[in-house]
Amino acid sequence: VSVSRPTPAPSGVEAAWVDGLEAASVKVLDRGLHYGDGLFETIACPHARPRLLELHLERLLAGCERLGIRGVSRPQLEAEIERAAAVPGLLKLILTRGSATARGYAPHGDETATRVLLRYPWPADDLDAGRDGVSVRIAALRLGENPALAGLKHLNRLEQVLARAEPHSESTSEALLFSSSGALISGTMTNVFLVEKGVLSTPRVDLCGVAGVMRRIVLREAARARLASGEALLAREHLERAEEVFLTNARIGIWPVRAIGQRVLAVGPVTRELQRLIAPLLQEGTLG
Amino acid sequence: VSVSRPTPAPSGVEAAWVDGLEAASVKVLDRGLHYGDGLFETIACPHARPRLLELHLERLLAGCERLGIRGVSRPQLEAEIERAAAVPGLLKLILTRGSATARGYAPHGDETATRVLLRYPWPADDLDAGRDGVSVRIAALRLGENPALAGLKHLNRLEQVLARAEPHSESTSEALLFSSSGALISGTMTNVFLVEKGVLSTPRVDLCGVAGVMRRIVLREAARARLASGEALLAREHLERAEEVFLTNARIGIWPVRAIGQRVLAVGPVTRELQRLIAPLLQEGTLG
Repeated sequence: VSVSRPTPAPSGVEAAWVDGLEAASVKVLDRGLHYGDGLFETIACPHARPRLLELHLERLLAGCERLGIRGVSRPQLEAEIERAAAVPGLLKLILTRGSATARGYAPHGDETATRVLLRYPWPADDLDAGRDGVSVRIAALRLGENPALAGLKHLNRLEQVLARAEPHSESTSEALLFSSSGALISGTMTNVFLVEKGVLSTPRVDLCGVAGVMRRIVLREAARARLASGEALLAREHLERAEEVFLTNARIGIWPVRAIGQRVLAVGPVTRELQRLIAPLLQEGTLG
Repeated sequence: VSVSRPTPAPSGVEAAWVDGLEAASVKVLDRGLHYGDGLFETIACPHARPRLLELHLERLLAGCERLGIRGVSRPQLEAEIERAAAVPGLLKLILTRGSATARGYAPHGDETATRVLLRYPWPADDLDAGRDGVSVRIAALRLGENPALAGLKHLNRLEQVLARAEPHSESTSEALLFSSSGALISGTMTNVFLVEKGVLSTPRVDLCGVAGVMRRIVLREAARARLASGEALLAREHLERAEEVFLTNARIGIWPVRAIGQRVLAVGPVTRELQRLIAPLLQEGTLG
């Protein structure tokens, strides 16, 4: 199962498994294809070990619970991920409700979940971005609000695709997204944190957005370090007033934001302190 | 290409083609699977001819334009649909942006769209529903609002899946959906029309919902028959005050609603008149 392919496809994928077996395709009736009826996780394995695997699996299984996807075996997922991570890389796990057993949107309860596991090479070093920060833009697209889907890392990602596809300068690494009611939510592939008068906050993800694994780590480390911090309903003004802004995800850790459109920001002390606190996690895969 | 399979799978699918060739699977890197990055059409072919093909293709290609899916050949789609419709059935065409050529949400512009065409048997006769009407419920789930996606028949359908999965009585055939701001939008698989003081209206689909092909036909036929009619922003009160309510889609034509939860409705004259006007279309595939 852990056989790797010497010549990556143009997409860069090195190896692919479906339901535990090396495979390059999924069934045409898969509800992941038809409806985006499923979830995914992106798991960093830079040292040939799946980083934060517990948190990824916890979120995935909580998502299955909310979507009513049944019959998923955690030990089986763990074993397959561990095997795929025998080589350094970035894993993407897609878990769908499985092939449709009848026509139409309604799940029939007798579907068997499909597991698609892909390994990509570990991306080119992002150390520069972590050190110097990145430029971001504000997306024109606004996210729809739906508490039933909020927080989940589900497969309905057209909003993120369209936000990324907006015309933009080559120099911006990410787009910040607001929701239809004007709340700041996240980047397209990152969560966002603000520091305002020394207080750290990140948008709530109860109307839209993804409850990121690294977001959770940063909130936990901030609380441990007794930094004033929490989730909040944040508007454009909060972003404009923030002294520090940074982005997080499971792969990148923390990227300071050094510019939002024309506005330049300094990389501040709270960002640096949090980077320092999570450095052991990024370097060795564990936190003290 | 038009070979049909004698033994349908449990899902009922009779035949499947991918990019014009009989096939049972799509590539694991397809962006339809990863992001729901694509569109679909359900085309009724009860008489071994694709009904309303022009309107389906027009909507599909308009959707490609909006999502930036390029290189789709209308003649090729037409030819494949015509061949698949050589046997009576219900066709589902899924058109995705194609396999990912790089990791991440951003389309890279060099993708080749994937065409998945499925033929299901023509469903068991719905004549009873057309004659006697159906019972519907109000879904607890509310649709997120996003003008960038509104009107499109795209593959991000988790909201519809969850609405169908809500606990409900066996006797309800459809669930009506409101949006996050309280506007009536549609059913999960149908558009909805109301008659209030003799005036026909259907919800706008500029914040969410699908611009249904049969919805378009009904609006056109109503205008031809000089019925007062149009699209409108409709709230719960409009639904409560309506004398007549009916549902439409490309397969069913018009289903009168005879009950919404506990409230019983009569099948009224506007509904019957519109059913009469579209009957030739349903029976012979063309309108005068």
